Amino acid sequence: MHTSRVFTRWLIRAVHSFKQARNYSEGLVYAKYGTPEDVLELQEVQIPSVGRDDVKVKVIAAPVNPSDVNVIQGTYPLSPRLPAFGGNEVVGMVTEVGSTITSLKLGDHVIAAQPGIGTWRDTIVCHYDKWLRVPSQLPIQLAATLMVNPATAYRMMSDFVQLEEGDTIIQNGANSGVGQAVIQLAASRNINTINIIRDRPNIDEIKHYLDDLGATVVITEEENSKRDIRSIYECYKSAKLGLNTVGGDSATNLMRQLQQQAVMVTYGGMSRKPVMLPTGSLIFKEIKFVGYWNAKWIERNKNSGPYHQMYDDLIRLGVEGKLKPPKCTEHLLQNYKTALSQAMTSFAGSKQLFVLN
Amino acid sequence: MHTSRVFTRWLIRAVHSFKQARNYSEGLVYAKYGTPEDVLELQEVQIPSVGRDDVKVKVIAAPVNPSDVNVIQGTYPLSPRLPAFGGNEVVGMVTEVGSTITSLKLGDHVIAAQPGIGTWRDTIVCHYDKWLRVPSQLPIQLAATLMVNPATAYRMMSDFVQLEEGDTIIQNGANSGVGQAVIQLAASRNINTINIIRDRPNIDEIKHYLDDLGATVVITEEENSKRDIRSIYECYKSAKLGLNTVGGDSATNLMRQLQQQAVMVTYGGMSRKPVMLPTGSLIFKEIKFVGYWNAKWIERNKNSGPYHQMYDDLIRLGVEGKLKPPKCTEHLLQNYKTALSQAMTSFAGSKQLFVLN
Repeated sequence: MHTSRVFTRWLIRAVHSFKQARNYSEGLVYAKYGTPEDVLELQEVQIPSVGRDDVKVKVIAAPVNPSDVNVIQGTYPLSPRLPAFGGNEVVGMVTEVGSTITSLKLGDHVIAAQPGIGTWRDTIVCHYDKWLRVPSQLPIQLAATLMVNPATAYRMMSDFVQLEEGDTIIQNGANSGVGQAVIQLAASRNINTINIIRDRPNIDEIKHYLDDLGATVVITEEENSKRDIRSIYECYKSAKLGLNTVGGDSATNLMRQLQQQAVMVTYGGMSRKPVMLPTGSLIFKEIKFVGYWNAKWIERNKNSGPYHQMYDDLIRLGVEGKLKPPKCTEHLLQNYKTALSQAMTSFAGSKQLFVLN
Repeated sequence: MHTSRVFTRWLIRAVHSFKQARNYSEGLVYAKYGTPEDVLELQEVQIPSVGRDDVKVKVIAAPVNPSDVNVIQGTYPLSPRLPAFGGNEVVGMVTEVGSTITSLKLGDHVIAAQPGIGTWRDTIVCHYDKWLRVPSQLPIQLAATLMVNPATAYRMMSDFVQLEEGDTIIQNGANSGVGQAVIQLAASRNINTINIIRDRPNIDEIKHYLDDLGATVVITEEENSKRDIRSIYECYKSAKLGLNTVGGDSATNLMRQLQQQAVMVTYGGMSRKPVMLPTGSLIFKEIKFVGYWNAKWIERNKNSGPYHQMYDDLIRLGVEGKLKPPKCTEHLLQNYKTALSQAMTSFAGSKQLFVLN
């Protein structure tokens, strides 16, 4: 059985190399919006020639984010022109550069500098400014997933309140990719994190995992709904920043732990319930409620000072081992149906990652 | 009957003048929190001597704001040391100044420069910096009510978005004191206002009244809950600023009319229902939800540049007739029970005003 799977993989790759030699790329394409399993197809597409400002990249790995699925479903506010390749994040290796390119060379590791490229394919040719060079020491699984989750965590911790050493952040969905990045970025700056997760059978295992990442306190949603929860972490200042990816009661309970003039940033709505704001929290507690939309931030700020500062910081932390790669489940492009269905059902756990070359 | 009422008033004032001559002030005092009708008492209190930095003011008029009642009920987040006089706004005339005072002189009209003085009394002696001089041409009823409603309107239009000529504001509770001030301040700057009011028997009368103040469009809550409402005011840009004093469904319907990256400012919660935010309005529509607390703003910014700029602008508009006094129902201090109960039941209509001297 095992031997046969190894052989199958070998055969797929052999066929794939043969196609690439014929200048065809294989990728997951959709021509209409709908359920990804129905509308995506693994297709051969001719690789365009490399123009003077272009770079050709052999894809190493590309993850599946829930928002990638929403784009294909047509429920996301930004939509590509169809037909399109699925996917937005990627890490790859430069295999050819146009005649004007001096900033990238063969063998460089690069990641997508912005969403929208269409990354679920083995080869990508596009304008050099769509790429960002990363050091080859940066773990592949972290490089492939740097643009969405760690960037979201970084910006939410930078753009809304001034956080100093000893300050406290409270977040729900703390086991999500963003949540794990928040814990690590906060730990690297000596900022406390109060981390709320849903109760579940393997709760102790998750608590240990988040503790190891640097979490200050990990509590369940139920614990956080209790009035006397402050006793658990009374040694820490009440939170200056709240991060909400759940909504509904979870957001309301989180809001209660915020200090005067705090900011609550919403970046997801896993419960599919709205955020409910008592009037007093707005007026007398002076809490600000804002959203963070990562793709839009990158669109507006690409190549700005803060954009490069962010990637420099994230890459440095990744190389130093202070920002760890997410847990990943690897898939071949062929197994996209499994990868996509797992991405939508267990996205708080393991990240689904297409591994290609 | 009428003659007898006139005589009663004359008698009350004669007694009052006699008491003042004996150096007693009459005012509405409370020594514990509770229902205002139960805990307030009309008392004689000795007038303190005028210190070198003090100013003595004969009160002309002092309004009843809903928040004044909340303070007495003990439900407001800021509370004075007890016993205290009720009331926060006032206009009066300077009748004596301390030896160091050069900025105010006898006969000047002044208003309270900040909340917390305790204004429901006939004579106030306190530090000169608690007073702000206003021109005597400023209508008494406007001067008496300038610090709360027009200031709230002014700040909400200044501090959250940059409004240009031709921009649009949408507000609910548009017939409230703040709402009417918003309409007039916007009209003076050629800013459009979409004004939402509750349906009621005299709706046409109110619409006419708000139109006369300069409202661009006046619609009912029910009209604004319909999906095709934009056709009513499609000639105007969608709103950059939303002002919410109602909460609940009204706030949700208001939010739908806001443009990308708009701000919704909540300054009241008349429906006693929370504001419900769909996750998408936070993340993808990038709307910010904030509160405005006037008393706190004044506490933090008193005597700052923006504070004086605001009063200069409001006073100028008032003297020019571009900011009209609110409709008022006048009361003697003795009739405080009527004034207070009317203030809590009809605060979207007429302002209850104690008139003293």
